[in-house]
Amino acid sequence: MFNKINDSIIKDLIAICGQNNVLTCREEIAGYSYDEYVNQLPGCVPEVVVRPGSTEEVSAILKLAEENRVPVTPRGGGTGLAGGCVPVHGGIVLSMQRMNRFLEMDRKNQMAVVEAGLTLGEFIQAVEKEGFYFPPHPGDEGAMFGGMIATNAGGSRAVKYGVIRNYIRGLEVVLSGGQVIHPGGKLIKNSTGYNLLHLFIGSEGTLGVITRAIVQVMTRPTFLRTMVIPFNSIEQAIDNVPLIFEKGIVPMAVEFVGLDVIQLTEKHLNLNWPSHQGEVHLMVIVDSPSEDDLSRMTDQIADVVLENGAVDVFVADTKAKQDEVLKIRSEIYEAIKKETVDILDICVPRSEIPGHMRKVQEVAQRYDLWLPSFGHAGDGNIHIHLMKARYEKGQMVPVSYEEIKDRLEAARQELFKDAAARGGVISGEHGIGLYKKNYLSLSLEAGQIEMMKRIKQALDPQGILNPGKIF
Amino acid sequence: MFNKINDSIIKDLIAICGQNNVLTCREEIAGYSYDEYVNQLPGCVPEVVVRPGSTEEVSAILKLAEENRVPVTPRGGGTGLAGGCVPVHGGIVLSMQRMNRFLEMDRKNQMAVVEAGLTLGEFIQAVEKEGFYFPPHPGDEGAMFGGMIATNAGGSRAVKYGVIRNYIRGLEVVLSGGQVIHPGGKLIKNSTGYNLLHLFIGSEGTLGVITRAIVQVMTRPTFLRTMVIPFNSIEQAIDNVPLIFEKGIVPMAVEFVGLDVIQLTEKHLNLNWPSHQGEVHLMVIVDSPSEDDLSRMTDQIADVVLENGAVDVFVADTKAKQDEVLKIRSEIYEAIKKETVDILDICVPRSEIPGHMRKVQEVAQRYDLWLPSFGHAGDGNIHIHLMKARYEKGQMVPVSYEEIKDRLEAARQELFKDAAARGGVISGEHGIGLYKKNYLSLSLEAGQIEMMKRIKQALDPQGILNPGKIF
Repeated sequence: MFNKINDSIIKDLIAICGQNNVLTCREEIAGYSYDEYVNQLPGCVPEVVVRPGSTEEVSAILKLAEENRVPVTPRGGGTGLAGGCVPVHGGIVLSMQRMNRFLEMDRKNQMAVVEAGLTLGEFIQAVEKEGFYFPPHPGDEGAMFGGMIATNAGGSRAVKYGVIRNYIRGLEVVLSGGQVIHPGGKLIKNSTGYNLLHLFIGSEGTLGVITRAIVQVMTRPTFLRTMVIPFNSIEQAIDNVPLIFEKGIVPMAVEFVGLDVIQLTEKHLNLNWPSHQGEVHLMVIVDSPSEDDLSRMTDQIADVVLENGAVDVFVADTKAKQDEVLKIRSEIYEAIKKETVDILDICVPRSEIPGHMRKVQEVAQRYDLWLPSFGHAGDGNIHIHLMKARYEKGQMVPVSYEEIKDRLEAARQELFKDAAARGGVISGEHGIGLYKKNYLSLSLEAGQIEMMKRIKQALDPQGILNPGKIF
Repeated sequence: MFNKINDSIIKDLIAICGQNNVLTCREEIAGYSYDEYVNQLPGCVPEVVVRPGSTEEVSAILKLAEENRVPVTPRGGGTGLAGGCVPVHGGIVLSMQRMNRFLEMDRKNQMAVVEAGLTLGEFIQAVEKEGFYFPPHPGDEGAMFGGMIATNAGGSRAVKYGVIRNYIRGLEVVLSGGQVIHPGGKLIKNSTGYNLLHLFIGSEGTLGVITRAIVQVMTRPTFLRTMVIPFNSIEQAIDNVPLIFEKGIVPMAVEFVGLDVIQLTEKHLNLNWPSHQGEVHLMVIVDSPSEDDLSRMTDQIADVVLENGAVDVFVADTKAKQDEVLKIRSEIYEAIKKETVDILDICVPRSEIPGHMRKVQEVAQRYDLWLPSFGHAGDGNIHIHLMKARYEKGQMVPVSYEEIKDRLEAARQELFKDAAARGGVISGEHGIGLYKKNYLSLSLEAGQIEMMKRIKQALDPQGILNPGKIF
């Protein structure tokens, strides 16, 4: 189906990108064969890694790849959790790491222009220096813009501020064969033809290589407050979420997290969470340009939850206290990663979280598994961890993977099916990539998958771009 | 290319929809040959109009159409301004008027489920009765959901609340050939495969017939205030807009409107606008759940604009006063429609409005035209009216269309090119439809148009769905 990389192709790649940016040594390319997914498929090694420095170079590489029929796997920060940047068919890995410029801060339009290889961390720093704010925060700040756009990354602030998709106004994309297009622009409204912009967002590098983006930013909300609210059960915690929205309050984030993973993460970081009461905690962040408004919101939330089963309410009102809470919340995955087999990112309608969480508990019990779960209660996106460990007396106790893996797989499929039955999907923010593609049909109608394949075939007839992904 | 409707097809259509819902008499079908565009192309008459009552009937009609190779033009409320629902190739007009049910108000997820033939007016009434609020308001309340989604309709509140696209969470779509799919769902996050949802939104009925939608609603902001701010020039008015945003205030709407059209509309409606000072007025609407916050915002806006050239500031703080202002603003088009040849909906980056408006003035002068303009200063979407009239002493004086039409056409093309040069597009909210398709290449790169055509070809190989539109 594809051709192998030969000396002539290497010579052409060197002519395009320069000797230093064409890597072929085993040691140099090994780091380009995986992402942050825990159980990597072995043997997904690229034949060559190229690091273009400009859109023109990306275009020349895609032209060369099409002429020689070799696959191209675009790669950003490698922080993905679905194997989206893993080269399953060898060929070229196209690393965007050198295209990392912050090109423009357009103050009047409140939009930034960036190259695809700029990291989230660098971007946040740059826009904050200019007095602006970028609401979405999908976990790892080493993520690059191209990758975040390609997976339509989310994060915990989506409930109020939306996901990456809502902040991308324009793109520069190199198509299969090398043509460069610029869908969208510095525009707030656009009804001019099909929305190609939104088609590329979330297409995981299979329809084109994103080289630049126009990113909406906003004025920073002046005041923030973080509440930690312990409950005795997951149902009680989750049942409180719609009650908050019914008060007309849209929090920036509403997360739920079990006391088990909080305690493991406290130990891991040597930091303190404000409470050890109950079993499951809601973490609620509210923001506003007015401090009075903020007090009104936190008071209203406290009243509602205390009437509906909350054990207590803690408000972190200083920056130091808030940072501690947020640090613990953001490092949970790191604290349990060593024994994690997979982190799911199922998304269900918000109202279906309690039902789905009951299913998680039932499945965990039936298969004798520890499935610690936390997630975005405000937007229905739940991170269930498939663990090769038990949780005993505040400790994570490893279990042999071989012994447990069939049960984990059975549990995964039951949970995917339960999500689908509730109108949910198997990926809310990580993408399908390599590691979820066998489950796509559990989530989407055959007609939708068929339509996606037709679009892929129409735009990349040779299947050069990121083959082996999504479907 | 297409076949004509014959007796056998009519018989089959009657078997699907019933005798009463298959119209063929000249008088009955005449009303289905145009929309709200002023200069309709003559002769765009359907051969038959069908009014299906269910998704199954729509599916059966599309299957029949494909088998017989006859074109299908979906039609909503007929309130479009680009000829999107006009049947240029005869065939079947598929009117969604009978599929007008409000199916569900899901309070926990704050989402409604509607059929495509429900009108905006009916929808607003239904959700407000339930205590919810639907932010987008694209002008005509007779617009139906299917049509608003197919054109990605906008309106004046987009600057804070976004356009229709931002509120559609899921769709039911019947594809060419009759297959039914359900992209999206009651979901806030979704990274599961290509985003088909966003591809259908704005595709103007050329990729599928929308039969149902899941629509996000929100809690009503409790307080609203409308400000009217006169300036002596359009530049001064527009230059104040970014200054408001820089204060961290995101108004619900920021509109600019000339005193000429305000006065014509006052006469037309026999209502009073709060001021006749200056030449161009900004209308700013702010909303907040807190009345204190609202006062803070209106005070800050007043301070900024009075420092930067505003002649005065009027705050409509009672509902009656606000309604009067909004009524006048929303009826401008009606007041001047009689002599309007076309209403453009160019969208440019917000920062480019002053430059583009200077071009409008220059073009009007050079071609001796009256081009009254108002628009969404907050989002860059400008409605320039091509008029067959002069404005003299507060009156609209008709001019012969034949005498003026070449100059109007030259002006239109210059303005489209100017918008493109500023990073803008020819349609911000009305869509391309029939009447803007000859100008698409002034707005989009050839590579983008080619990509759109490939998608169309892949999903509707016979070109049955709404032929002759967009490209």
